[in-house]
Amino acid sequence: MEQKIQRLRTLLSEIMDLNYISALLGWDQQTYMPSGGAEARGNQLALVGRLAHERSTSAEMGKLLDELKPYAASLDPDSDDARLVKVTARDLDKATRVPSSHIVEFAQVTTLGQQAWVEARKKSDFSIFRPHLEKIVALRKEYASFFPDFDHPYDALLDDFEPGMKTADVKVIFEGLRPKLVGLIKAIAAKPQVDDSFLHQPFDPVKQWSFGEEVITKFGYDWKRGRQDKAAHPFTTEFSLNDVRITTRVDPDFLNSMLFGSMHECGHALYSQGVAPKLERTGLERGTSLAVHESQSRMWENLVGRSLPVWEYFYPRLQELFPQLSVVPLDKFHKGINKVRPSLIRVEADEATYNLHIMLRMDIEIALVEGKVAVKDLPAVWNAKMEEYLGIIPPDAATGVLQDVHWSSGMIGYFSTYALGNLISAQLWERINQDIPDLNEQFRSGKFETLLVWLRENVHCHGSKFEPQELIQKITGSRIDPAAYVRYLTKKFGEIYCL
Amino acid sequence: MEQKIQRLRTLLSEIMDLNYISALLGWDQQTYMPSGGAEARGNQLALVGRLAHERSTSAEMGKLLDELKPYAASLDPDSDDARLVKVTARDLDKATRVPSSHIVEFAQVTTLGQQAWVEARKKSDFSIFRPHLEKIVALRKEYASFFPDFDHPYDALLDDFEPGMKTADVKVIFEGLRPKLVGLIKAIAAKPQVDDSFLHQPFDPVKQWSFGEEVITKFGYDWKRGRQDKAAHPFTTEFSLNDVRITTRVDPDFLNSMLFGSMHECGHALYSQGVAPKLERTGLERGTSLAVHESQSRMWENLVGRSLPVWEYFYPRLQELFPQLSVVPLDKFHKGINKVRPSLIRVEADEATYNLHIMLRMDIEIALVEGKVAVKDLPAVWNAKMEEYLGIIPPDAATGVLQDVHWSSGMIGYFSTYALGNLISAQLWERINQDIPDLNEQFRSGKFETLLVWLRENVHCHGSKFEPQELIQKITGSRIDPAAYVRYLTKKFGEIYCL
Repeated sequence: MEQKIQRLRTLLSEIMDLNYISALLGWDQQTYMPSGGAEARGNQLALVGRLAHERSTSAEMGKLLDELKPYAASLDPDSDDARLVKVTARDLDKATRVPSSHIVEFAQVTTLGQQAWVEARKKSDFSIFRPHLEKIVALRKEYASFFPDFDHPYDALLDDFEPGMKTADVKVIFEGLRPKLVGLIKAIAAKPQVDDSFLHQPFDPVKQWSFGEEVITKFGYDWKRGRQDKAAHPFTTEFSLNDVRITTRVDPDFLNSMLFGSMHECGHALYSQGVAPKLERTGLERGTSLAVHESQSRMWENLVGRSLPVWEYFYPRLQELFPQLSVVPLDKFHKGINKVRPSLIRVEADEATYNLHIMLRMDIEIALVEGKVAVKDLPAVWNAKMEEYLGIIPPDAATGVLQDVHWSSGMIGYFSTYALGNLISAQLWERINQDIPDLNEQFRSGKFETLLVWLRENVHCHGSKFEPQELIQKITGSRIDPAAYVRYLTKKFGEIYCL
Repeated sequence: MEQKIQRLRTLLSEIMDLNYISALLGWDQQTYMPSGGAEARGNQLALVGRLAHERSTSAEMGKLLDELKPYAASLDPDSDDARLVKVTARDLDKATRVPSSHIVEFAQVTTLGQQAWVEARKKSDFSIFRPHLEKIVALRKEYASFFPDFDHPYDALLDDFEPGMKTADVKVIFEGLRPKLVGLIKAIAAKPQVDDSFLHQPFDPVKQWSFGEEVITKFGYDWKRGRQDKAAHPFTTEFSLNDVRITTRVDPDFLNSMLFGSMHECGHALYSQGVAPKLERTGLERGTSLAVHESQSRMWENLVGRSLPVWEYFYPRLQELFPQLSVVPLDKFHKGINKVRPSLIRVEADEATYNLHIMLRMDIEIALVEGKVAVKDLPAVWNAKMEEYLGIIPPDAATGVLQDVHWSSGMIGYFSTYALGNLISAQLWERINQDIPDLNEQFRSGKFETLLVWLRENVHCHGSKFEPQELIQKITGSRIDPAAYVRYLTKKFGEIYCL
């Protein structure tokens, strides 16, 4: 069996190398590639994707896993080998259930769908995107039909992003959360608004960049095993656990884009840099799930990066770089970066309203998959929900139903991971504060290592060995639960807005 | 047959896509990769190399070419299809004659060889490198033995870099050239030396960079299909004919590194950007040979970039950026950038002495392969030849026999392409000046398009359809010949040094 496990590891190392090569092709495409390179890059990405898929679904892989399953069942279920066989078999099972004709059609439909979406958004005309989205929804339903053993068709979509997560569970979580958020936002709206106008003024981009570097260096980002570049749509990517790169964008007239974007991507990168080296090139070195990954980015961006103690440490340096902030006291700065106001665009939303944007999308996705809402009615449904959840109505489709790229590329089932990530971050945060009682004191003196070590030991090192609910249960003693997030928001904004 | 040709093109497109992916992995490694990424990058490069090799030497490829050869013989021998079959069959024949055990051993020996060379050069101690070089020479001789049909064992090595080129031909060319160069250099040495001290002073790196960009933009480099980045050892690479990237380095205290380095790499890039699009992804879109590629880089660097008319155009702008040059008249600047002085290091050599550095290396390589010189005697042989050709003796091995990386990586047979490139550049130049009589007038007004169009039509578009001697014969009416280069140097340095 030792030989068979070794063979499995060899096969997986080649698949992961191909995935890493894909990631480099993608990174270059979004950072440095000249426009002329686009067509060839498409060919190269398609080739590497095909080679990885062939290897992931090969007859040898199937046979090997069948032979290894009884052996894996005899091991400690939390051992690397047992998990390796389990996770690989799960992925293979999924991959082999989907006919290649579906994969090809999905690629074609979503390529056209993304083009149509770009045009539709530019013209703010949903009718341009509608026929494409109808096909995409039909294909997602077909995809779900390949997995009849799930309780709900939406489960099949969700499971690709959050292994083991159920629609019913997410619904319960969100239904518990929504009234609390709506209530909080109403309470805040009744109070005087905080001022954040000082964040919207010219900030030298070179200084912004260097401040961002200082901050994430303090957080513990390892520059020998990564780098930061500019990209229009920031992301984190990796070509090995020792080459984890982040990207960010700089707005010369608004401090938040670079600053919190950089912290956010750093959170993702710290996760990848912290996975146990023994898991490298097995497929287990990926994050547990998108939500757990997001819990790390949101933790460093919000629970750390928008907290008062952290700015007690960083603010003097920021004022030194940008003397125009010398007239803004720390307390005012801290309130400004935490301003709550219902707004139209998800990616610009604050911590209190963000999850409502997600719930709206998930409600719509489930209704689409269940056939309870038709694509043609989406603009109206969207606007009605925006009014219900956030009290505002988008003036047009571009700032409403057309704002996100996800659906055009077929990513139905993805959005909830953003909200779950927020919930997990707060749930972990309570545990962390029990284990490190003087955390705020440490932040005030610029010390982030204890936090990072805690995350490494409890979250990062495991890679994708566990399913998200398993991992959160192991760490916090309970499954994903919105209560901690509600407590966090209520306390934080209670102080900021004197509720 | 149409179907079979189509199948061949499909197979080749996949091989070229893999080669392009390799090139991106290499580009990133030398420009942006953090040090931590090195080990994983090695795995990724090895994988892509293996996948490309498997496809290049597959049974299907062999069968297909056997079937296509009679058909290709029935076509116009200069047609794309005839050349495609010919070139692919030639490459396959070479690849299949070399046993994989040899390839593996060569990779291992040269990996260790490069490490040993780095250490040997650092300590200036040839004895550290000697046992490795002995193995490398033995392996190169073994490689040559796989090709007994060549006239001379060195032919087999040369042929990999210069298809169809014979050792005997290169010897004749170099033997005609050497006395002329030695004589020219002696004549120059008897004259008062020109002053180039103004090139060695602080030049703001940002301004250097932007001037370099201005120059190569004028030359015709297409930024939509390429970009320029920094690298310790400048190179040009391509990921498609529409994504051809150059790298350069900037020395803050010496203008030439960036300036002529950028022009040199731009020359390579203009070649690749000018290959006929119909040849893309066939393997015929590579350059004709290393020497023909070098003829393009050296032409833009030297025949264009170190000429007086070109600086009549660019010099005012350079003086504007660097006011310290306002005290240096154009004539003095032009002489300074063309200073001739025998020196120890090949890569820093001027146009007149450069080829002597190459001849020395080629003499030694041939003697090594013929067994007429032993590796242990190389330091002494090197120094004796330096004295004979250039009148100077290296004080140590680091600035003598250990200066170049090539041998440590097994590249024996490569050096002559540098010198041949210089000869070809001058040979083409005479033809260009016949076809474009007002070339210097054009340069004086910053017009380089006529030259570029000529190169596109006569050299670039053909890719690697022809062997180098064929191509030069087609364009100039004669085979590679040093006479034009001697005429070029004699006239140029006759004027500069008043010979």
